[in-house]
Amino acid sequence: MKIKILTLFPDMFNEFKNESIIKRAIDKGICSVECIDIREYSLDKHHHVDDTPCGGGAGMVMAVDVVARCIRANTSDNSHIIMMTPQGERYSQKKAEELKKYDELVILCGHYEGFDERIRDFVDEEISIGDFVLTGGEIPAMVISDSVIRLLDNAIKEESHEDDSFSTGLLEYPQYTRPIDFEGKLVPEVLLSGNHKNIQRFRKKEALRRTYLKRPDLLEKYNFTKEELELLEEIKKEEI
Amino acid sequence: MKIKILTLFPDMFNEFKNESIIKRAIDKGICSVECIDIREYSLDKHHHVDDTPCGGGAGMVMAVDVVARCIRANTSDNSHIIMMTPQGERYSQKKAEELKKYDELVILCGHYEGFDERIRDFVDEEISIGDFVLTGGEIPAMVISDSVIRLLDNAIKEESHEDDSFSTGLLEYPQYTRPIDFEGKLVPEVLLSGNHKNIQRFRKKEALRRTYLKRPDLLEKYNFTKEELELLEEIKKEEI
Repeated sequence: MKIKILTLFPDMFNEFKNESIIKRAIDKGICSVECIDIREYSLDKHHHVDDTPCGGGAGMVMAVDVVARCIRANTSDNSHIIMMTPQGERYSQKKAEELKKYDELVILCGHYEGFDERIRDFVDEEISIGDFVLTGGEIPAMVISDSVIRLLDNAIKEESHEDDSFSTGLLEYPQYTRPIDFEGKLVPEVLLSGNHKNIQRFRKKEALRRTYLKRPDLLEKYNFTKEELELLEEIKKEEI
Repeated sequence: MKIKILTLFPDMFNEFKNESIIKRAIDKGICSVECIDIREYSLDKHHHVDDTPCGGGAGMVMAVDVVARCIRANTSDNSHIIMMTPQGERYSQKKAEELKKYDELVILCGHYEGFDERIRDFVDEEISIGDFVLTGGEIPAMVISDSVIRLLDNAIKEESHEDDSFSTGLLEYPQYTRPIDFEGKLVPEVLLSGNHKNIQRFRKKEALRRTYLKRPDLLEKYNFTKEELELLEEIKKEEI
C-alpha cells in the first residue's frame, strides 16, 4: 500500500516513519509513507497557501486552487482521497478494515482555520477521529496510517491482532506479567495454574465484564455464544 | 502547565514539540512538554520493560514494577496522571476543557500488547481517543497535548477558538477564500456583499444545516436561540 500525506508540515511525520512497526513495514516493502508539502504547489513567490476568509472573521483559510493543484499532481484513478476534518465520519476499527483494501491512500491534512469549502469536491471521503479540536490534520493522519498499516498482511504477527480491543467486539481482558507479587498486589491464581481451559474462561469472562461495565454499547452489536451468555448472567449477578 | 509524557519512544515527540503552535506556547513559557523514557526505570541490565503474559498468549505486557517506578519518580501530589488505553473514557472537547485546569498532566503511553493490570492503580484516569487500535499511546498522547495546549491562555488568538467545531456546540460553517471563481465554482454571493448581518445569518444557518445533516446528535444537547430555531425550521423545509 502507498500512503501519501498532503500537509504543510511534512517534518511532523519524520519520527512517525521511524516508529518500530511502521519502519519495519516500510523496510519490508509492505507499505510506503510519502509526505508531500502542499506549499510547493503555491504559485506565488511567497508560497502562500491560505488567505483571509471571504465575509470576514478570524484565522486563515486554505485556498482551493493550491490544494486542488497538489491533489491533482499526486493522485491517480487508483487513489482513495481522504480529508481529515472534525466534520467527517467518525473513525473506527471498521473503517480501518475498509481502508486497508485500497492500493493508495492519500490523506489531506488541513490546519485548524479550515479548508475552502470547494476543496471538499476533490476528496472521496471526510474522516474525523473524534469530537475535539486539534491544530491540524497531521496527528489524525498518523492515527489513520498507524491503524491501517498494522492491519496489512505481515506488518505484525497475526496472533497479536486477535485479542485487541474492538477486534473481537469486546474490550481486551486484563493482562498480567511478572513480578507475581508486586507490593502485595498479586497476579490472579488461575493465570498461574497452567489449566488452559480455566485460563480461557477467566479471560473471556473478564473481557465480558469490563465491556459490560465500561462499554455496554459494544454488547448490543455482539454475537454471543451460548457460553458467553451464561458468563454474562454470572457477571450480572456478581455485580449487583 | 507542565506536560510529562512517559513513553518507550520519546523521540516520537521531537517534531511534535516543533510544531508551530506547540513550539510557540513552549517558547512563551505557557507550557512545557517533557518526554520521559520508561526504559530508564528498568533495573535489569538489558533494560527490559515487558515480559510474557501470565497464563500464556501472544505479545508482551508492560511490567508493573518498572512503570510504577517511573510514575513515582516523575509525579507529585499536583500531577494528574492519565493512562492512554482503548478501554478508557472517550476523549472529547469537554474533557480537554477539564484537563486544561491542571498544573501538571502526566500521560502514560503503553504499546499495543498492553499494561499489566495492576498499573491502573497508579493512574487518576484512563482515556481513549476512539474505537480503533493503534500501535501505542504516543499518537493519542499527542492528541491530548495538542488539544489542551491550544486552550491555554494566550496559546492562540482568542477569536480563533470561537467558531471551531464543537466549541460552539455546532459544526463549523463553510469557509471560503480567494479565488472567488475557481473553475466555475463560486464563493456564495452573500459573503462578498459586505452586509455583516446577512453574512452572520448565512453562517449561522449553514452551521445549523450541516450539524442537522451530519451530526443531529449534537443538536439534542444544543441550546437554541429563537432565531436559531426559526433557521432550523427553514432548513428542514429546504431539505425535504
